Amino acid sequence: MDMNKPLVGIVMGSDSDLPVMREASDILDELGVPWEMLISSAHRAPEKTANYARQAAGRGLAVIIAGAGGAAHLAGVIAGHTPLPVIGVPIASGALNGVDALYATVQMPPGIPVATVAINGAKNAGILAAQVVSAGLPEVRDKIIDYKEKMARQVDEKSTRLHELGIDGYLNARGGK
Amino acid sequence: MDMNKPLVGIVMGSDSDLPVMREASDILDELGVPWEMLISSAHRAPEKTANYARQAAGRGLAVIIAGAGGAAHLAGVIAGHTPLPVIGVPIASGALNGVDALYATVQMPPGIPVATVAINGAKNAGILAAQVVSAGLPEVRDKIIDYKEKMARQVDEKSTRLHELGIDGYLNARGGK
Amino acid sequence: MDMNKPLVGIVMGSDSDLPVMREASDILDELGVPWEMLISSAHRAPEKTANYARQAAGRGLAVIIAGAGGAAHLAGVIAGHTPLPVIGVPIASGALNGVDALYATVQMPPGIPVATVAINGAKNAGILAAQVVSAGLPEVRDKIIDYKEKMARQVDEKSTRLHELGIDGYLNARGGK
Amino acid sequence: MDMNKPLVGIVMGSDSDLPVMREASDILDELGVPWEMLISSAHRAPEKTANYARQAAGRGLAVIIAGAGGAAHLAGVIAGHTPLPVIGVPIASGALNGVDALYATVQMPPGIPVATVAINGAKNAGILAAQVVSAGLPEVRDKIIDYKEKMARQVDEKSTRLHELGIDGYLNARGGK
Amino acid sequence: MDMNKPLVGIVMGSDSDLPVMREASDILDELGVPWEMLISSAHRAPEKTANYARQAAGRGLAVIIAGAGGAAHLAGVIAGHTPLPVIGVPIASGALNGVDALYATVQMPPGIPVATVAINGAKNAGILAAQVVSAGLPEVRDKIIDYKEKMARQVDEKSTRLHELGIDGYLNARGGK
Amino acid sequence: MDMNKPLVGIVMGSDSDLPVMREASDILDELGVPWEMLISSAHRAPEKTANYARQAAGRGLAVIIAGAGGAAHLAGVIAGHTPLPVIGVPIASGALNGVDALYATVQMPPGIPVATVAINGAKNAGILAAQVVSAGLPEVRDKIIDYKEKMARQVDEKSTRLHELGIDGYLNARGGK
Amino acid sequence: MDMNKPLVGIVMGSDSDLPVMREASDILDELGVPWEMLISSAHRAPEKTANYARQAAGRGLAVIIAGAGGAAHLAGVIAGHTPLPVIGVPIASGALNGVDALYATVQMPPGIPVATVAINGAKNAGILAAQVVSAGLPEVRDKIIDYKEKMARQVDEKSTRLHELGIDGYLNARGGK
Amino acid sequence: MDMNKPLVGIVMGSDSDLPVMREASDILDELGVPWEMLISSAHRAPEKTANYARQAAGRGLAVIIAGAGGAAHLAGVIAGHTPLPVIGVPIASGALNGVDALYATVQMPPGIPVATVAINGAKNAGILAAQVVSAGLPEVRDKIIDYKEKMARQVDEKSTRLHELGIDGYLNARGGK
Repeated sequence: MDMNKPLVGIVMGSDSDLPVMREASDILDELGVPWEMLISSAHRAPEKTANYARQAAGRGLAVIIAGAGGAAHLAGVIAGHTPLPVIGVPIASGALNGVDALYATVQMPPGIPVATVAINGAKNAGILAAQVVSAGLPEVRDKIIDYKEKMARQVDEKSTRLHELGIDGYLNARGGK
Repeated sequence: MDMNKPLVGIVMGSDSDLPVMREASDILDELGVPWEMLISSAHRAPEKTANYARQAAGRGLAVIIAGAGGAAHLAGVIAGHTPLPVIGVPIASGALNGVDALYATVQMPPGIPVATVAINGAKNAGILAAQVVSAGLPEVRDKIIDYKEKMARQVDEKSTRLHELGIDGYLNARGGK
Repeated sequence: MDMNKPLVGIVMGSDSDLPVMREASDILDELGVPWEMLISSAHRAPEKTANYARQAAGRGLAVIIAGAGGAAHLAGVIAGHTPLPVIGVPIASGALNGVDALYATVQMPPGIPVATVAINGAKNAGILAAQVVSAGLPEVRDKIIDYKEKMARQVDEKSTRLHELGIDGYLNARGGK
Repeated sequence: MDMNKPLVGIVMGSDSDLPVMREASDILDELGVPWEMLISSAHRAPEKTANYARQAAGRGLAVIIAGAGGAAHLAGVIAGHTPLPVIGVPIASGALNGVDALYATVQMPPGIPVATVAINGAKNAGILAAQVVSAGLPEVRDKIIDYKEKMARQVDEKSTRLHELGIDGYLNARGGK
Repeated sequence: MDMNKPLVGIVMGSDSDLPVMREASDILDELGVPWEMLISSAHRAPEKTANYARQAAGRGLAVIIAGAGGAAHLAGVIAGHTPLPVIGVPIASGALNGVDALYATVQMPPGIPVATVAINGAKNAGILAAQVVSAGLPEVRDKIIDYKEKMARQVDEKSTRLHELGIDGYLNARGGK
Repeated sequence: MDMNKPLVGIVMGSDSDLPVMREASDILDELGVPWEMLISSAHRAPEKTANYARQAAGRGLAVIIAGAGGAAHLAGVIAGHTPLPVIGVPIASGALNGVDALYATVQMPPGIPVATVAINGAKNAGILAAQVVSAGLPEVRDKIIDYKEKMARQVDEKSTRLHELGIDGYLNARGGK
Repeated sequence: MDMNKPLVGIVMGSDSDLPVMREASDILDELGVPWEMLISSAHRAPEKTANYARQAAGRGLAVIIAGAGGAAHLAGVIAGHTPLPVIGVPIASGALNGVDALYATVQMPPGIPVATVAINGAKNAGILAAQVVSAGLPEVRDKIIDYKEKMARQVDEKSTRLHELGIDGYLNARGGK
Repeated sequence: MDMNKPLVGIVMGSDSDLPVMREASDILDELGVPWEMLISSAHRAPEKTANYARQAAGRGLAVIIAGAGGAAHLAGVIAGHTPLPVIGVPIASGALNGVDALYATVQMPPGIPVATVAINGAKNAGILAAQVVSAGLPEVRDKIIDYKEKMARQVDEKSTRLHELGIDGYLNARGGK
C-alpha cells in the first residue's frame, strides 16, 4: 500500500456529523494511516456517493468509513458500489437517538456487509480501519499493539491513583462530578 | 394521466417479499389503477435501482411503491433519484421482525421523504398510491369512496351477525379459533 | 387544481406542535403550493376534526397533513373520514419521545393508509404533499426538481469547503460545536 | 343502575379480536354484570363508532370496553365522544405484537383518559368494568370479593398439590410440558 | 356516596412523585371530587401499603390512584389487597424514562387489573377516577361533560387565533418557542 | 447452616412457571444445596406471599428465588418483607415475551435490591443461590468449582469433536438442526 | 469471615463510573462491611481483570460487584473466572442510556450467573452484597434489618408531613420543583 | 499471506450456533479464503478463549469472526486480546431474540472495536473477512467482484422471470407461499 495516498476514505452524510466523525481521522493520524474526508449523502447527493464508492478501490483506498444518522443508508449504499470493506458509524440524532441509525446500518441483507461499530463510535471505526490496513503494514500493526498496551497502562494508573487518593480525592482531582 | 400505461411502479428488494407486495398490485387492480412490478435491490443491484428511479417520471409513472426488509434502504434510495412521491413498505423479516425496516424506511432526513405505511402494509401502500393518482382521475376517486363505504358496510354486517349468532355461533361460523 | 385556494390542509392536535408543523407550511411556500392550517384534536374536538375531514375533498383540498404526539390518532381519524391521501407527522413529546406517536400513526389497519414521515418530519410532510399535487402541476414538479438539485449542490459545496478549510477550520467557521 | 339492561358496552375493531374480547364478556357473566357487544372501527366505520359512543351514557351504559390492535385508536376515539369511563384493551397482532396497540391506547393526551389493561388483557378489562359498576351494586362488589378469595385459594391448592406430588408428579398430572 | 369524605385515595411511592401526582388532586378539585393523599411504598413500607389498601373500601373510598416509577409495583400490590378499582400512573424516572414503570403497571396478570394511564398521566388518572365515581354522582358527571366541552372550545379558540394571527404572530404571542 | 433443612426457597407466581423454575431446583440438587418450593402470587395471594417472606429468615432460609412473568412483582414484594437476598427470574410470557418481566424485576428502587438473572434464567438463579450459601459451606464451593471446570471441559470436547468430524459430521451427529 | 480484610470487591470499567459506583461503597460503609475498589476493564485491561477475578476467592473476598456501561462485559468476564457470586451494575452511558449495559449484564448464558441490579443501581448492589455476606455475620444482618425499618419510618414521616403541610407546603419545604 | 494456512478464525460460543456460523465458512470457501473453526466461550472457557485470541496474530490469522447469543461477550473479549480485526455475529436466541446479542456485540467502548454484522449475519461476516484479507490477495478481490456481479445478475433474472410469469406464475414456480 502506498502510504503517501489516503488509504481510508471517511464519508459522512451531513456536516453536523463532523464533530463525531473527526474522531476517526484523529485516531488514524495517531496510528499513522493516511485518510481523506468527504461530505456526501445517499439521498441528497446519490450520484456523488455512487461515483465516490465506485472509484474508491481504483484510487487506492483500502477501506471506507461512512457515518450517518436517522435512516442511515450511506454505509449500505456505498457497500453496494465497492468491493472494499465498508465500516458504518451510526450517528445519534433526532428522537430515536441512534437506534434507527444502528438498525439501518447493521441489518444489511446477505451479500453486502457493513462492519458496524457503536452508535457515535467513530474512534473505533478509525481503529478498525487501521486494523484492516495493518495486515500489509507492520508499522501500523505495531502502533495498534502499542495503543492497546497504553490503554492497559492507563487503566492501571487510574486504579492506582484511586487507591492512593481515595474516592473523594480522586473525584476532586478530576473536577469531581 | 394515461391509463393505458402503468401509473404505479412497485419495486421490491427480494422475491421473498412478493407474497406481501402483491397485496399492493391486487388492490390497485381493484381500484382500476395500472401498475408495473420490478425486483431490484439498493445493495445488490444499485445501478438497476438508480436507473429505474431516474427514468420513472419520464416514463409516465406517478408514484413508486418500494418494499424491503432489514436495513431497508430501497425506498429511500429510490426517493433520492426521483421527484415522484415514493411509498415505503417495511417488510417484517429476520430477528427484529420489521422494526429495523420500519426505522430504516420512515426516518428519512429532511429533503427526501418516504411515505411509510405499516410493517407489511402493502395493501395500504396500494390504496395510498391510488389516492395520490386519484387527484386527476375522478373514476379512481369514486372507486376509493366506494371502497371505504364497502368497508363500513362490512363492519356493520359483521356486528349484526355477531348480534344474531352470539359469540359462540359467530366463532363457529368462522371456523372458531 | 385551483392554485388560488389551499391545496394542502395542515392539521395539528395541539398548538404546542406548531413550531414543528410550521416546517410543513414553510416548505410548501417555498415550493409554491397553497395551504391552510388548523388546530383540532381527535379526542378533544372530535366533531370539528370529523367535519373538517369530511368536507376537505369537496372544498378542493388535495392532501391533508396531520401532526400529533403521544397516542397520535389525529391522522388516522382524519383518514377514516376522507378519500384524500393523508400524511401523518408523529410528534416527539413526553416520556416515549415520539415512538408512541410513530407507532400510533404508521401501524394503520388494512383499508385506511396514513403516509407517515419521520418523527418531527414536518418538512418532509410538506415536500411529500407537494409531490402529490405535482402530478397535475408541472410548475410544482419543476420546483421539486430544483429543490433536489439545490440539495445536491449544497452537499458538494460543504464537502469542498471542508476540503479547503480542514476539519478545525470548518468547525470554527460553523461556530464549532 | 338497571341490571336488566347492559351496563357495559364491549366494542372491538375487528371480528378477529373476538376470541380475545370474549374473555371480557365471560368474566362479566361470572360477576353478574349485563353487557352488550359490538364490532365497529375508528377508521372503517367512524360514524358508527361516534354514534355509539355519543349515545352510550344516555342508553344507560356505565362503562365501555374497547379492544383494537395496531394503531389502536378505537378506545381513544370513543373516549373523545363520551363522559363514561373507557377501558382499552391493546390487542397483539402483526409484526409489533401489541406494543403498537399498547402505546396507541395508553398514551392518551391530558383530558381524555383511557383505562388501559395488559396486551390481550380482556379478562382484566371485564373485571375492571365490574369494579367500576360495583360502587352502586353491592352484589357485584361481593362477587368480586369472592372472586379474589377464590384466586387466593386456588394458589394455595396448587402450592399444596406441588408439595404433595413433587415437581415431576405435578407436571405429569398437568400433562407435563 | 358521602361527598364529605374522600372518595379517591391518591398514593405515591416517593415524594419525588408529588409534582406529577398533584395533577390528579388538582383536577379532582376542579371536578368536585374529594380525595386524600398518601406517600407509601410497595417495597419500603409494605405493611403500610397493604393496610391502606385493605381498609380502603371500608373507609368509604371508591377508587385508588397509585403512581410509581421504575419497577412500579405499587398499583399492582394495592390492587391485590382491595376490591376497588385501582388506577396506575407510571412515573418517568431513571434511565428507562418510564417504559419500565409502564410495563410494570399495565402488564398485570389475569384476575387483578390495574387501570393504567399514560406515563406521568396523573391528570388523566384524576379524570378517570371522577368518571368512575360519577355513576352515582350526577353533579360530577355534569362537570365532566362541561370539562369536555371546555376542551373542545379551547381547541376552537386556538385554531381561530392561529387563523387571525398567523404562525409567527401566534408563536410570538405564546412567547415563541 | 443446617444442611438438613432447606436453605433456598423457590417461589413462583403461577404453576405455568414450573417447567422453567425447576431448572433452579435441579441445579441446586446437583450442587448439593437443599431447597423448598412454593407457588404463591404477589397479587392473587398477597398475604401468603408476605407471610412466607417475613418468616423465611427465621425458618433458616438463606436465599429466596422468585420467578414471575408480565408485571413481575413477586421478587420485589418478597424483597420488601425480608432481609435475605432475593434472586428474581423474569419469565417470558405473553406478548412482550419477558421484557416486561425483566424491567419489573430488575428496576427496583434504591433500598430494596433484587438480584436479577436472565429471562427464563432459572438455572443461573440456582447457581447464584448456591454461590451465596457457599460462603459458609466449603463443600458447596467445591462443587461450584467442579461445575465450572466441567463446563470448560465440555466446551473443549465439543471443539475437538467439531475439529475431528467437520461441520457436516458434527451436525449430523447432533441430529442436524 | 475476617472483618479486617475487604469482603466485597468493587470493580468498575472506567473512572467515569466512579460517581455511580461509590454509592455501593457508601452503603457498605453504612452497613459495616469492608470493601476494596478497583478500576479495570474487560477489554482494555483483560489480564488485570482476569487475575483479579481468579485471586478474589483466595484473597478472602466473598462477593464482587462490577459496574460497566455500553457492551458491559466486565461482570460476566469476572464471573467466568471466579466461583464467588458476582453482582453486575449496568451503567447508563451513551446513546442507548443503559439498555445496552442492562442486556449485556443480565442475559448471561446458563452456567455463569451475574446478579444484576437496576441501571445505575450501585446502592442496591452494595445492599445485596451486604445481604450475601450477612449469612455469616449477624451484626450485618441486624444492620440490614435496621436499614429496612428506617426506610419504612422515613416513608411514614414523609407521608405525615405531606398530610400536615399540604401539597404546596410540602413542595415549598423541599424547594418545590 | 500464506494461503495454505487459515487466514480467518471462526469462533462460536456454543455448538448451537453452528448452523448459523457455518454460513461464514461456506462463503469463505466460495471466495477461496482458508479458515479454521473453534467452539469456545468467554464465560465457560475463558482461558481457552484468551489463549486463542492472544496467539491468533502470531499463528498467521488475519481476521477473527466470533458469534455468540444473549450477553454476547465473545467477540469483545477476543478483541481485547488481539490486534487483529474482530468481526462479531450477534446470534438470535432466547426471549430477546438477538437484540441483547446485538447490543452486547456492537456497543464496544472506545479503543476496542468489534466489526458487527446483522443478527445471524454469519454469511456477511464471511464476506467481510474476505474483503479484509483481499487487500493483499488480488484473487480474492476478484472473487468478491465476481460475487457482487453475480448477485446483480440474479436480481435481474428474477425480475425478468417475474415479468414473464406474472405474480401467480412466479409464486407457483417457487412453490408459492
